[in-house]
Amino acid sequence: MYRSHTCGELRLNDEGKHVTLSGWVQTIRKFGAITFVDLRDRYGITQLLFGENLNNELDANPLGREFVIQVVGKVAERSSKNPNIPTGEIEIEVDSFKILNKSAVPPFTIQDETDGGDDLRMKYRYLDLRRNPIQKNIVLRYEVNRSVRNYLHENGFMDIETPFLIRSTPEGARDFVVPSRMNPGEFYALPQSPQTFKQLLMVSGFDKYFQIVKCFRDEDLRADRQPEFTQIDCEMSFVEQEDILQMFEGLLKRVFKDVKGIEYSDEIARMTWEEAMWQFGNDKPDIRFEMPLANLQFPSAAFPTKTGHPEVFEGVDFKVFNEAETIIAIAVPGAGEYTRKQIDELTEWVKRPQIGMMGLVNVKCNADGTFKSSVDKFFNEEKLGLIAKAANAKAGDLILILAGREEKTRKAISELRLEMGKRLGLRNPEVFKLLWVLDFPQFEYSEDDNRWYAKHHPFTAPKPEYIDTMIHTSPVIDDPEHYLEHPFAAIKANAYDMVLNGSEIGGGSIRIFQKELQEKMFHALGLTKEEADEKFGFLLGAFEYGVPPHGGLAFGMDRLCSILGGADSIRDFIAFPKNNSGRDVMLDAPASIDQVQLKELAIKIDEISKA
Amino acid sequence: MYRSHTCGELRLNDEGKHVTLSGWVQTIRKFGAITFVDLRDRYGITQLLFGENLNNELDANPLGREFVIQVVGKVAERSSKNPNIPTGEIEIEVDSFKILNKSAVPPFTIQDETDGGDDLRMKYRYLDLRRNPIQKNIVLRYEVNRSVRNYLHENGFMDIETPFLIRSTPEGARDFVVPSRMNPGEFYALPQSPQTFKQLLMVSGFDKYFQIVKCFRDEDLRADRQPEFTQIDCEMSFVEQEDILQMFEGLLKRVFKDVKGIEYSDEIARMTWEEAMWQFGNDKPDIRFEMPLANLQFPSAAFPTKTGHPEVFEGVDFKVFNEAETIIAIAVPGAGEYTRKQIDELTEWVKRPQIGMMGLVNVKCNADGTFKSSVDKFFNEEKLGLIAKAANAKAGDLILILAGREEKTRKAISELRLEMGKRLGLRNPEVFKLLWVLDFPQFEYSEDDNRWYAKHHPFTAPKPEYIDTMIHTSPVIDDPEHYLEHPFAAIKANAYDMVLNGSEIGGGSIRIFQKELQEKMFHALGLTKEEADEKFGFLLGAFEYGVPPHGGLAFGMDRLCSILGGADSIRDFIAFPKNNSGRDVMLDAPASIDQVQLKELAIKIDEISKA
Repeated sequence: MYRSHTCGELRLNDEGKHVTLSGWVQTIRKFGAITFVDLRDRYGITQLLFGENLNNELDANPLGREFVIQVVGKVAERSSKNPNIPTGEIEIEVDSFKILNKSAVPPFTIQDETDGGDDLRMKYRYLDLRRNPIQKNIVLRYEVNRSVRNYLHENGFMDIETPFLIRSTPEGARDFVVPSRMNPGEFYALPQSPQTFKQLLMVSGFDKYFQIVKCFRDEDLRADRQPEFTQIDCEMSFVEQEDILQMFEGLLKRVFKDVKGIEYSDEIARMTWEEAMWQFGNDKPDIRFEMPLANLQFPSAAFPTKTGHPEVFEGVDFKVFNEAETIIAIAVPGAGEYTRKQIDELTEWVKRPQIGMMGLVNVKCNADGTFKSSVDKFFNEEKLGLIAKAANAKAGDLILILAGREEKTRKAISELRLEMGKRLGLRNPEVFKLLWVLDFPQFEYSEDDNRWYAKHHPFTAPKPEYIDTMIHTSPVIDDPEHYLEHPFAAIKANAYDMVLNGSEIGGGSIRIFQKELQEKMFHALGLTKEEADEKFGFLLGAFEYGVPPHGGLAFGMDRLCSILGGADSIRDFIAFPKNNSGRDVMLDAPASIDQVQLKELAIKIDEISKA
Repeated sequence: MYRSHTCGELRLNDEGKHVTLSGWVQTIRKFGAITFVDLRDRYGITQLLFGENLNNELDANPLGREFVIQVVGKVAERSSKNPNIPTGEIEIEVDSFKILNKSAVPPFTIQDETDGGDDLRMKYRYLDLRRNPIQKNIVLRYEVNRSVRNYLHENGFMDIETPFLIRSTPEGARDFVVPSRMNPGEFYALPQSPQTFKQLLMVSGFDKYFQIVKCFRDEDLRADRQPEFTQIDCEMSFVEQEDILQMFEGLLKRVFKDVKGIEYSDEIARMTWEEAMWQFGNDKPDIRFEMPLANLQFPSAAFPTKTGHPEVFEGVDFKVFNEAETIIAIAVPGAGEYTRKQIDELTEWVKRPQIGMMGLVNVKCNADGTFKSSVDKFFNEEKLGLIAKAANAKAGDLILILAGREEKTRKAISELRLEMGKRLGLRNPEVFKLLWVLDFPQFEYSEDDNRWYAKHHPFTAPKPEYIDTMIHTSPVIDDPEHYLEHPFAAIKANAYDMVLNGSEIGGGSIRIFQKELQEKMFHALGLTKEEADEKFGFLLGAFEYGVPPHGGLAFGMDRLCSILGGADSIRDFIAFPKNNSGRDVMLDAPASIDQVQLKELAIKIDEISKA
């Protein structure tokens, strides 16, 4: 028996017990003949006492940091207690010990704050994983996993495994492929998601499916993406959108309760995609704070039901605004006192390549009701007052205005809003605000190849009132300039995203379950009948045999955990993550493989493409 | 709302309720103006009643098999009840219905006994999955999953995800590899198991890990293997073998209870690997029945501590036995009345290529204490009596004897024992017998390349008493003929297999946790220091920094489920299995991929190797 107790377990009422502990040496402190050793395992830290004045002559000198040891001793009350740790009232008077394994000096300190850089920590991931903050993340992840499973089980869902070695699909450009030794020259693909399989399970009658499952995407990794990532994947039959929203609101409330101890009693906010774009400039607004956009001017085709504030511009002749497609303002509460330097810095911020604006207009709302603006030359007090009114600005606020092309400007003001929220401390990671974004567009227009793409994916059902339009309209866009006027641009889908604190943590849709509509959808996306059959024959085949109405969604496990853990990056919520080049630095993978193996797989390295 | 109740839910005490059901049309039976429809979902079957004499003039004619419909109606007592189904006392008098989706005539019947052949059922897997026996298997699998998770959670284990895109390892010949677009010319490998990762997690201090996880092996598929399979993978720190055995005995007892309702109260049997080979001829004996082997003669080097029955052969001159390395008998209870024809058929059975023996000797034990044997010419009554005594045969038994080379003969008699057990009905799939096989050999000798292989895997620890031998003995085998006399042949490992009804359902070991011993192990397996560093550098690196004593095991989820489900094949316990060529017939995967994709991956098809 290596241990009678863990290092996080003993308390004052265990005083006098003879115990055996095993763990890692965290710190060694010598005071004359006495040595204090902190012994660590994943349950906590217990102080060990070695020294000749305590009826034992043990020499703690051979010990070093990160040695694995086993000690036998007696639980005693500490003379100087540590209120910061649960075992802080006791220590172990060591009678005997055994070094189970030695350790070299670790390349960085195994403490909450480490001196190790990112690369070193990735290389020695097994040591980084010993640190308390990372251990807590991994524990949190397991708690989320457990909570999700319990809720879904109690609600009748079944975990059903779907295959990892599948067939490459049209989004295949981002598929990882796997050559097959038994079928030389042929390849499997790793799934980007189990989408088609969960739909087939609905066809089979398994009406509530879930899986916490790895998915794979071989694409350029943005700062915080991984080539393999984990989804909480769910699907239900004989449901409408509202059934799904309620089921998964329940899931998230359960996770908040189980993992964070938070009763999320607010009704979960809902907003249409159009409102999200209109009010916040993106489809995953952070609603922990207000600061909505004031749409002064915009292309009406993008928001056909909206009116802006044309009164602001009547009789104003300001070239920058005259030439702008879109002009949007936000009122930053209490920032009216910003100095020239601060404003200049903000202007530089919006000019950075990631934002890419040409400049920033500002209007300060003075306490006396007057305004001070960077565009005083063009806007008189009355006009500035109209802007302030449109932006719902109060005395002491700073109004920031961006102008330019619709898409870029909206994105930029949205980023600026988030940045100002952050600067004002309105994005507290311990505050959690959920939001459903509903009624996404069915299609997304691509200027590059003048065609429609699925905004969600090709299996998403349009809202019933648009089915006729989808079936009877040609997808051809005759006038790319005015693609917004094509009937497809207006089609809304039964698709929904769950947003937490400004991050999309999940999304899904009601699926198409009628064969004709699915065929029309493939057609709309530019697939010929032959291509559709080649790629999705098995699914279209299944559509012949009684598909039930169904829908579902998937949550991004990595992101959900990082937000619950109050962190920006997902990486430290994954035990063995890859870096931004998709490399596992610890394993040094990927790597070259030998010729014998290549030959068996009937492939060769294409040195020209490689170069 | 698509349904107020499922098709398995309504009972007589719901009579009079107005309900809405949705599901699939299983059968349609017309009696004059009345039509009975069985409506099916995964919860059960409910009888619907359509007909003009029941105050509704609904015409059920448009309905067909496997149509998806929604019906509204009233729960009524049936005139003719069906005691075989839980809803058999009621039916629904249909007021209105809606066809949600039509279905073509399915390619086979969706019933417990289907007329579909294997290939057709694989192609239309989504329809086969509608059948009750398959649904039950998938449900059983989920119940095993849930039971395992609950037990492990309650015992302090954490589910931690390990990566799927890893580095190819020495057993790499069977790795699936994955070319990387971001690292052209380089490959990841898919894990054959998370072995090294779970060991690294122990190094990190996560002292109780588990995962129910897909593993991958690209090898010729025997009848019942899959290229992707699922393991229940576990590891623990600060434990000895006995801790692990007890923990996982508890796990299996819990699974029996949760999934089969069986209290497995027997103490779980244990047997050393040597005893299993000696008594049953293989390392996964089916102990639902006795019929142990009588080792009449055998090479003593293979079983140095055993004695056989030389008295049987004293003064006997039977060429077949004289020349045999090994002679083993079994006594088949009550088979003494076997006819000549039956014996001939058994003889043919052992001569089949899979068994490959030259012949079968038989001795019938007559009721009067005399014997009738195929070798009467060589063995007198006294000698036959000695054989019967050695085989512990009783009057009425049939003794079967095989002779030949040790390995082949032992394997053959073991197969014959299983076959006779089956014929005698002693292998009841509803009886479950667990067995730990312990003390496996550390090494396995390979005649082909005159070297040692790891019997379990390269990380398995030898029993402590053999550590010195391992560290101080050269692995070189000077005399291949007598490899059994090399000290390595005698080294036993702290390795264990869990056997259920004659199938290995899991196995594991205490791991090496000392760097020097791990290096010796790699050396024993023929890896140079450079090769070991190249392949396992990260693991040997981790061994520098305080590895705790640890061990674990993995269960084969697919096999465990099939045995619990009373089936021989694992395939119908996997939602979307592959066939014996590793193909997914439904998806038609693997498949060729296009040139653009190959180019991005910097690989080419090697047409010569392919051919």
